[in-house]
Amino acid sequence: MKEENPTSQEISMKWYANSLSKALGLKYPIIQAPMASAASVELAAAVSNAGGLGSLGLSYHKLENIISDYNKITNKTNHSVNLNFMTHKNPSINVTKNKKFKNHITKYYKEYGINYIPKINNTCETFNTDQLNLLLHMNPKVVSFHFGLPKASFIKKIKEQNIYIISSATTVEEAKILENSGADAVIAQGFEAGGHRGTFHSSYKEGEIGLFSLLPQIVDNVQLPVIAAGGIADGRGIAAAFMLGAKGVQLGTAFLTCPEASVHPLWIKALNNSKERETRITSAFTGRPARGIVNRLLREMDGKENILPDFPTVGSIIKPLANSASLIGDEDFLSLWAGQSAPMSQNIPARDLIEKLVKEVSDIFKNIKNN
Amino acid sequence: MKEENPTSQEISMKWYANSLSKALGLKYPIIQAPMASAASVELAAAVSNAGGLGSLGLSYHKLENIISDYNKITNKTNHSVNLNFMTHKNPSINVTKNKKFKNHITKYYKEYGINYIPKINNTCETFNTDQLNLLLHMNPKVVSFHFGLPKASFIKKIKEQNIYIISSATTVEEAKILENSGADAVIAQGFEAGGHRGTFHSSYKEGEIGLFSLLPQIVDNVQLPVIAAGGIADGRGIAAAFMLGAKGVQLGTAFLTCPEASVHPLWIKALNNSKERETRITSAFTGRPARGIVNRLLREMDGKENILPDFPTVGSIIKPLANSASLIGDEDFLSLWAGQSAPMSQNIPARDLIEKLVKEVSDIFKNIKNN
Repeated sequence: MKEENPTSQEISMKWYANSLSKALGLKYPIIQAPMASAASVELAAAVSNAGGLGSLGLSYHKLENIISDYNKITNKTNHSVNLNFMTHKNPSINVTKNKKFKNHITKYYKEYGINYIPKINNTCETFNTDQLNLLLHMNPKVVSFHFGLPKASFIKKIKEQNIYIISSATTVEEAKILENSGADAVIAQGFEAGGHRGTFHSSYKEGEIGLFSLLPQIVDNVQLPVIAAGGIADGRGIAAAFMLGAKGVQLGTAFLTCPEASVHPLWIKALNNSKERETRITSAFTGRPARGIVNRLLREMDGKENILPDFPTVGSIIKPLANSASLIGDEDFLSLWAGQSAPMSQNIPARDLIEKLVKEVSDIFKNIKNN
Repeated sequence: MKEENPTSQEISMKWYANSLSKALGLKYPIIQAPMASAASVELAAAVSNAGGLGSLGLSYHKLENIISDYNKITNKTNHSVNLNFMTHKNPSINVTKNKKFKNHITKYYKEYGINYIPKINNTCETFNTDQLNLLLHMNPKVVSFHFGLPKASFIKKIKEQNIYIISSATTVEEAKILENSGADAVIAQGFEAGGHRGTFHSSYKEGEIGLFSLLPQIVDNVQLPVIAAGGIADGRGIAAAFMLGAKGVQLGTAFLTCPEASVHPLWIKALNNSKERETRITSAFTGRPARGIVNRLLREMDGKENILPDFPTVGSIIKPLANSASLIGDEDFLSLWAGQSAPMSQNIPARDLIEKLVKEVSDIFKNIKNN
């Protein structure tokens, strides 16, 4: 009885009952990273229903699909949900560069017998007025941004509706900028993290900082709650992040192998076969640095990144190639985003994963020798 | 009374009283990294006397200085001491490459009015029979090796004397090799670490793994006790490392600003002014990748590392230049080794640092909400 119905005082003594959980309306301060298309409505809803924060990455969505996905998720959960948008600079179109890049890629297209290379175009909008208006209409509990924050006038409107604002920092400098620009919490994104580096102000090289170093230094330099991301895959990682001062954690790769996620079977296979040393940061797939499992395109574009057009336009040429290749079981051109802890993935449903993570942390904390 | 004289049962309940402390004969499983010349006899003795494991890096020493330093330290402490040697491949001398490199460096020599560029030579021996015989004669409690382990016949002799053997791994693969080659404990050296990457089997790029990912994956794949290194600068970092399964920690940069260390004032100044984003991994100073604070040589050699002769011969050309430059207050050519947590350095004596670290961990563990 007692364990099933803890008193509020008992709950307040749990490691997970902290200011961040309270602010986000969560049982557990465990966030599932948005991960654009890989984070399905089903995954996000399952995470939120299990007491964590489910997230939807919406930057690649058409406006009408944003609303329909949001409706779907609110039908599946009454709990807090995070909607994520990208805040990159709009790409500048460089005709010469685009041509050079298309020429370079032609050989791959030929290999797969594809005659038509599509026009290079913008595959996802940076956070704009239309998205803002939709966001204000949907009015989720939380919004997160990648690559910095939108402009001040946008932030002002979001804050007027008390939507909780999160964004990622890869340096202390960036964390301070986010704090001064209206963020309510900062994600410390370690070098270990899969997918796109959130770097938006420091140089990409400056932003390559392991979580062990980045997290405590951000905690020491901002007042906001700090959420740890990068390489966290189990209860040990969550416990460690809390020791370093995190108030919450964001896991991406760990959720990719949940059956609810929308991940290409070749990507799942790569995750399950991957080794800790087999990921790299590359711009080859989108034009912006992101960590994924080494495959052919990543390997062959290494050192040639100067020929890449701006983010996200590279994707408009690579995606069709990846699709054709994957049809014949070939992972060579898929962006196999993964963090350095990918080999620790569990392949279990999101609810089970959340419960397992929480139990692992509780057990670790119970067993600390401390007299 | 009770606090001053804890019973053995009480001690066994402390977080620091574990199998590694016991095996190394330590009160605290906190190792001061060898750091070649920067780790003085005074520093190592102070650390050992404070309950940690002091280390001396001896590869750059002449044989007679090895003995005299060992005698000095055993006069200063009765506690366990770690002697460290490097196990790199002997450099191959490539006359054309050496000439090209000297030509490239000439401009810097001219800038400082130095007319004579020395012959490129081997500045430190890889662990050899002479060093082995000395080691067996000195018979310290612990020996650690960087860049792998010496050959099996050497390991056999060391093991016959029950000297505890430690070496660094930067991938799971390397940790397994160390375990199978006779190591008694493995250091998981995260991407954050200052100084030379311990990478000896995997490629350098493969070995760039953040400690959050590397540590638990090594713990899961070897039976040996694992020592965490890289980015650990305070009690939070030690507590986090223990959460991830470490049985001990090795701190390098954190000890550089202790007054007992033998560190050039310009290096200390750079450490005290550094930011978390201002270190890089470079081969510019020695021919082998190592993390240091960005300065002129590091910046100007970026992308030109293919012209570098083998480790450690690069140092024979860079060191004299660094010395001349530093005489006029110029840090441009000094190897300013530092990890990514350098800004967290404390500038306090080694004993105070050890006591502070231990108290911080104990306080953190006491305050965990865990009901």
